[in-house]
Amino acid sequence: MEELIQISPGIDPHGASSGQTGKEQQAAGVGILLQIMMLVLSFVLGHVLRRHKFYYLPEASASLLIGLIVGGLANISNTETSIRAWFNFHEEFFFLFLLPPIIFQSGFSLAPKPFFSNFGAIVTFAIGGTFIASMVTGVLVYLGGLMFLMYKLPFVECLMFGALISATDPVTVLSIFQELGTDVNLYALVFGESVLNDAMAISLYRTMSLVRSNASSEHNFFMLVVRFLETFVGSMSAGVGVGFISALLFKYAGLDIDNLQNLESCLFVLFPYFSYMLAEGLGLSGIVSILFTGIVMKHYAFSNLSESSQRFVSAFFHLISSLAETFVFIYMGFDIAMEQHSWSHIGFIFFSILFIIIARAANVFSCAYLVNLARPAHRKIPLKHQKALWYSGLRGAMAFALALQSIHDLPEGHGQTIFTATTAIVVLTVLLIGGSTGTMLEALQVVGDSHDGSLGETYSLPENLERNHTYIAPTYDVESSSGNKFKMKLKELHNTASFSALDKNYLTPFFTSNNGDVDDDFDGPTPPSSRGNGFHRYG
Amino acid sequence: MEELIQISPGIDPHGASSGQTGKEQQAAGVGILLQIMMLVLSFVLGHVLRRHKFYYLPEASASLLIGLIVGGLANISNTETSIRAWFNFHEEFFFLFLLPPIIFQSGFSLAPKPFFSNFGAIVTFAIGGTFIASMVTGVLVYLGGLMFLMYKLPFVECLMFGALISATDPVTVLSIFQELGTDVNLYALVFGESVLNDAMAISLYRTMSLVRSNASSEHNFFMLVVRFLETFVGSMSAGVGVGFISALLFKYAGLDIDNLQNLESCLFVLFPYFSYMLAEGLGLSGIVSILFTGIVMKHYAFSNLSESSQRFVSAFFHLISSLAETFVFIYMGFDIAMEQHSWSHIGFIFFSILFIIIARAANVFSCAYLVNLARPAHRKIPLKHQKALWYSGLRGAMAFALALQSIHDLPEGHGQTIFTATTAIVVLTVLLIGGSTGTMLEALQVVGDSHDGSLGETYSLPENLERNHTYIAPTYDVESSSGNKFKMKLKELHNTASFSALDKNYLTPFFTSNNGDVDDDFDGPTPPSSRGNGFHRYG
Repeated sequence: MEELIQISPGIDPHGASSGQTGKEQQAAGVGILLQIMMLVLSFVLGHVLRRHKFYYLPEASASLLIGLIVGGLANISNTETSIRAWFNFHEEFFFLFLLPPIIFQSGFSLAPKPFFSNFGAIVTFAIGGTFIASMVTGVLVYLGGLMFLMYKLPFVECLMFGALISATDPVTVLSIFQELGTDVNLYALVFGESVLNDAMAISLYRTMSLVRSNASSEHNFFMLVVRFLETFVGSMSAGVGVGFISALLFKYAGLDIDNLQNLESCLFVLFPYFSYMLAEGLGLSGIVSILFTGIVMKHYAFSNLSESSQRFVSAFFHLISSLAETFVFIYMGFDIAMEQHSWSHIGFIFFSILFIIIARAANVFSCAYLVNLARPAHRKIPLKHQKALWYSGLRGAMAFALALQSIHDLPEGHGQTIFTATTAIVVLTVLLIGGSTGTMLEALQVVGDSHDGSLGETYSLPENLERNHTYIAPTYDVESSSGNKFKMKLKELHNTASFSALDKNYLTPFFTSNNGDVDDDFDGPTPPSSRGNGFHRYG
Repeated sequence: MEELIQISPGIDPHGASSGQTGKEQQAAGVGILLQIMMLVLSFVLGHVLRRHKFYYLPEASASLLIGLIVGGLANISNTETSIRAWFNFHEEFFFLFLLPPIIFQSGFSLAPKPFFSNFGAIVTFAIGGTFIASMVTGVLVYLGGLMFLMYKLPFVECLMFGALISATDPVTVLSIFQELGTDVNLYALVFGESVLNDAMAISLYRTMSLVRSNASSEHNFFMLVVRFLETFVGSMSAGVGVGFISALLFKYAGLDIDNLQNLESCLFVLFPYFSYMLAEGLGLSGIVSILFTGIVMKHYAFSNLSESSQRFVSAFFHLISSLAETFVFIYMGFDIAMEQHSWSHIGFIFFSILFIIIARAANVFSCAYLVNLARPAHRKIPLKHQKALWYSGLRGAMAFALALQSIHDLPEGHGQTIFTATTAIVVLTVLLIGGSTGTMLEALQVVGDSHDGSLGETYSLPENLERNHTYIAPTYDVESSSGNKFKMKLKELHNTASFSALDKNYLTPFFTSNNGDVDDDFDGPTPPSSRGNGFHRYG
């Protein structure tokens, strides 16, 4: 984007000096036009493939391929540099505009119960596991270099590579999980790990890059852990706080009456981004923050909206995140095809693939062992879930973005080697693992598994999860009789005792206008009868 | 945006060399955070003011003021340059991302009948009138300079200033028109003129800037007119073409069954942007193109969507355009407070305000005279409408963006003077005209005027327009009996004969799946009964 200095629409008069702006503007038009066409193509192709139940080429892989092919064609033909500029992968664009909607939608469409009941395991995998994986990869790559098996990187550079390549991608595997339907606990583990380990990988990468520049003699291992926990807890609190504020705002502002659907939606849509930028502005992790804002807003703020706004914002976030997800893969594919790669170190690529497989195994099986030690017999993670988790570690946009950054950070050619290897790993894992996840899930017999509430073969798992699973949004359980309520309450207290009780007795009544359980008089200024009349002005 | 080289979330380790990226990233976070907070504030303030029927500070003026105040505070306190970078008004951001949704929504929410029945008048005002206004302003400013009344600009620079300052802004005045309710023909005139004259002003500005750089000895007056018409007709055809293609796609793709609401909405949302970028890529005017795409998509493609998608996309475009509109004014206010201004030429500002008032009078009254010559007695534009039109010419973001560009185009300080004058004119007209439009409309007695179908005092005029006015979307008139149909048809043929007949008999049956008039068998693959079941998966 920085290449475009002056762009404005209107006539391009093919002039000499003033024609420069006209040309730039036309280039921007052509660039964005191509991107839109690829987006449309991806959506249509993805739809057709899904229609025909062809799971070997999931939507993400299809988008990546489209990007690669169009990028390759643009590389062969002599496309103007001003058009190319629109296709360079900009890390800031990725982190500030593409990533937030994807992560928010993850949190917003999440079934909170399996996520929180597996929270300990998820944190173990995400923090401990990612640390193990980074270290194992880094050490193995260093040893490989020492033994002349592969390109020799200095030790700290090896650890940086280990950190960035340990960020797994949630998009592709989860979309297959959703389509095939799998165990909710496995889904929660894979999902939770892949979202949280991005934050861990970034923080490890940054710390290593700091160690490399020798600016941190005081940063020992202990400090590193403290700093990570600080960031994590801080970001989580910021996210949860913003979520609660939004819930109170929508409870008391009375926007769900009076045809104010547009205002209501505008404000609702701005909160997640606010949370992300608040965390970033405080030097915390925006990803973690927006994830928790998503969870809290869905659970509390969402039910304070008018019915039409509820329908609208769900569809809105779904739309925005699908666009962002698809775009990320196209964008990545195109950039991979356009960038300079140093293919001289093919051995480095081969061995690093081998090493990340080993490192992921070390991560998953050791952490699962630890988690199983702490869990009671009926809640242990079965071996087939561990295998599925091991298999699901494909690398995506996060690793790619960090590798691009490493080119700037490591100027002596090391960055270039890391970038090429990461690129190859991303393409291979997305195409191979993405294409074979369906087969793997079937082979491990975790498809439609009824371990803790199974899912049919449907298109939209997160919504179904909520319905099939015992979690019911506070608004909707007003109908259930009081006898049932008592049983449900007892059961819930038994299940995930403390949090559920806190939620039911204090948080839900306080943050939502319709608690549907104890005191229906504890109501916001909004009579429920006025809901659902916000949409009629559109249409 | 170009100041930010590497941004990524995660921990900011306060380090020396690697801390640079951390700081940039934090600055981006703080910058965007401030922008979101101002957006929220504008929405809330606008809502409160509207609630209390306080029309002296419309939402746009409030946003501009918020931007000015926060910008002023940021200027006094020593805000970091890296944060400031996020608030500089980038012309490319405005033209590529903020303007398209605003213009599309204008077309999408437009009542086509008053627009097309006044099309001749609108084109006369937009093309002839803007040309007259530019020339009058330019010549007066040049004469003023010759007579030492004001800063002396060369003649071509005067004409450039005349061109850019003739772009009137549709946002503020129209929002007041909508809230107070006014004559549909007056609304159509003001709206149509302000949208189309943007395209004219840009093209005039670019031609003048070309004449200045002496690159166009062959560009005489005749060529200029031909080139403008070429651009206009080309852009209109591109826009209408994209609209028709989208209508056919949604008619035959069968996406309105089968819970494919997300896919349907994704594709629908991409088409307008496609149209804008197509026109830009061809060197045409994106504004004109996306405006006509909006009109065509609403009229034909929209009724081919499933009911839930119809509701969703209406709300979506409304949301996006409100966000963009509000943001434009905040952004402009902030930038005005932050930029360097050369206040030494205060006389220039004073006289140019005087001259644009004269030029606008010359534009409106002469064009209205011409239009009235051609119109039959009962359709003449009454004097009070002419006065209202004269009064409504406030200058907004388009003039501002072109003035910013003139700083690059005219480096000898002339650009700076033009920019300062434009800034002052924008702030004054938005605050003064915006605040007094309500009073003016009441004084001229055009509020709730029942000249050709009046509107009550409602919040959302475009939707009401459609309902109160005879235009009924093709989908909804299936219920009317055949006797009524015949009468309606006769009446319509009489009214705006040729286009309506063409629309009714050929375009609507061909491009929509539900024509509701002649042959109900001429139906797309979509049974109407399947509609309206797309939303239940959200919620």
